[in-house]
Amino acid sequence: MSTSPAKSSMRDALVAAAFQLFLERGYEQTTVDDIVKTAGVGRRSFFRYFPSKEDVVFPDHEQALAEMTAFLAASADTDDPLVRVCDATRLVMRMYAENPTFSVQRYRLTREVTGLRTYELSVVWRYEKTLGDYLRTRFADRRDGTLRANVVAAAVVAAHNHVLRAWLRSGGEGDPLAEVDRALAFVRDTWNPDGPGAEPPADREDEDVVVVITRRNTPMWRVVREVESSLGNG
Amino acid sequence: MSTSPAKSSMRDALVAAAFQLFLERGYEQTTVDDIVKTAGVGRRSFFRYFPSKEDVVFPDHEQALAEMTAFLAASADTDDPLVRVCDATRLVMRMYAENPTFSVQRYRLTREVTGLRTYELSVVWRYEKTLGDYLRTRFADRRDGTLRANVVAAAVVAAHNHVLRAWLRSGGEGDPLAEVDRALAFVRDTWNPDGPGAEPPADREDEDVVVVITRRNTPMWRVVREVESSLGNG
Repeated sequence: MSTSPAKSSMRDALVAAAFQLFLERGYEQTTVDDIVKTAGVGRRSFFRYFPSKEDVVFPDHEQALAEMTAFLAASADTDDPLVRVCDATRLVMRMYAENPTFSVQRYRLTREVTGLRTYELSVVWRYEKTLGDYLRTRFADRRDGTLRANVVAAAVVAAHNHVLRAWLRSGGEGDPLAEVDRALAFVRDTWNPDGPGAEPPADREDEDVVVVITRRNTPMWRVVREVESSLGNG
Repeated sequence: MSTSPAKSSMRDALVAAAFQLFLERGYEQTTVDDIVKTAGVGRRSFFRYFPSKEDVVFPDHEQALAEMTAFLAASADTDDPLVRVCDATRLVMRMYAENPTFSVQRYRLTREVTGLRTYELSVVWRYEKTLGDYLRTRFADRRDGTLRANVVAAAVVAAHNHVLRAWLRSGGEGDPLAEVDRALAFVRDTWNPDGPGAEPPADREDEDVVVVITRRNTPMWRVVREVESSLGNG
């Protein structure tokens, strides 16, 4: 009998072999047989870890989805639901940020292979659904609670993906966790402007007084634009 | 030589034949050959209209995407961008609402076939990208303009799909165009509470002048709340 590698190391070896081959000869030109031969394991070992060749490209999403689901299930009624879904979304970014080289390689692969792009869309949809399920429960007693839950979940996912795509396109430069905090704060403040994420006041210059004079029929968006430009953050 | 049916009627015949067979024997069990035989046309005719069997399930999305793109391209700089993307999104709902029976049949088919669900996700992504491209241009001079564009586009699509799914699940009951107006108003009011879509001002009292004085470090939401309450619509 040969020695059997530990479960996780065999899984890692399969992922490493798959990516080596995908980069060398292309995704379409690589078969599962090629992958198991390179990894030095049997064909059945591959399918024990991955239902299909596509799944080996995204080996961590199932775990991230499970973590997100558990994190949301552990939420207390006193938790701000917006804060909770933003924190849950950070778990996904952390997964990408833990291994920038792998994340960027996969991103480039996904750009080239249509089947992987659609697979990725289905993963994104599962994250959005997980966040939406949680928010629907939390907003159950609100008028338009379901609509609000679906819209907020989509907005959170869009903010996350906005940062993720920019980071992957840049080749993994910078700190995507800091960036995603900023982007998620934009979403949180949209619906919950005075929540725990609101900016604390900073320095003496902040004490300046701004006066806005407006006619009563001025649309609010015009007032906001005027105030923003006076405050220098328009 | 046999007489050749008009282009659109041959296309319609292919769609009708495909759905007849999908409903009778299932999507997976129906081949393109079965479809062309039932429609009484040649195999090449099928591929002239549809790149693949999946495409025949969603025959109108290309046209709806083209209409949406043209509608957004025809936008003037004076148009409120939020109103414009909401109107663009209505075009899609109109497509579904024009043929409730077909839309509901397709929805049931899509629930059963994984490949069609992922195809549908890629179509949804193209709508979202089309709206996002337009908003990115319109928000180009804003700080966080790209983030805002992506988040708003996702929110608009989520609101549309919220109504669409409920309508399809109900078997096509009620007026989805009225429902989508209500859902889109929720999104529009989130970012643009007093835009052109808001109630018009009514009387002489509108000429009053409101003065708001604020410190520079006052959060925007506090300024807005103050102005709103001064204007009597808080």
